[in-house]
Amino acid sequence: MTADEQAIRAVIERWLRASATGDAGTMLTLLADDMIFIVPGQPPFGKREFKAAWEGPMRGAKVESDAHIEELLFSGDFAITRTRLAVGITTPDGKTSRASGYTMTLFRKQPDGRWLFARDANLLMPETPA
Amino acid sequence: MTADEQAIRAVIERWLRASATGDAGTMLTLLADDMIFIVPGQPPFGKREFKAAWEGPMRGAKVESDAHIEELLFSGDFAITRTRLAVGITTPDGKTSRASGYTMTLFRKQPDGRWLFARDANLLMPETPA
Repeated sequence: MTADEQAIRAVIERWLRASATGDAGTMLTLLADDMIFIVPGQPPFGKREFKAAWEGPMRGAKVESDAHIEELLFSGDFAITRTRLAVGITTPDGKTSRASGYTMTLFRKQPDGRWLFARDANLLMPETPA
Repeated sequence: MTADEQAIRAVIERWLRASATGDAGTMLTLLADDMIFIVPGQPPFGKREFKAAWEGPMRGAKVESDAHIEELLFSGDFAITRTRLAVGITTPDGKTSRASGYTMTLFRKQPDGRWLFARDANLLMPETPA
């Protein structure tokens, strides 16, 4: 495994650990300043909206994730992952909502050598309770 | 505009023109052999499944597209686009279904210099008739 691949996997691990405890501060450090999230049914949004969500409706939420990186491709300062992901989001009132599907993510190597999330297409769909 | 940017935009234009007339043969020439489509609610699929769909349920369909490339990023042999897209798919029985949203696409420069579609995350959602 190359140093870049190790670095990307470490960023993803940090992201998953931070979301498990609702640590939005750490998550924000892993996002490029021009980060764009793409999700179905709403306009793309950036780091500011992500921060506002975690200070608002997502405050105190914990995200349990089961993530499988199905591929990791590199060229130049770009890395692309395709990840199969199942999440359970538990809000402070104890309610859990589940979703599963795929993400396609662009990571960009920064001038200082760090890899950060830069674009994230999230195609997860809600799971209906059995 | 660089030669690579012109080439990517030309590939997208060819794709849109081919889909407008249901010309699956041309569309297939624009896909890398290891092409992967990612859509919500089903497993990722490749070129073979794309071809089978156009020989089956999509046979004779015409796809009218309104596409705005919101960004085009390059590094090495990778190009990433984020496109705002509205489509109307008309099947031979005259019925049209509409969907809109965003795509995030990875294009890869091939050893022979051509840029081809390599990964496509399609986040379009069906529009409900007014």
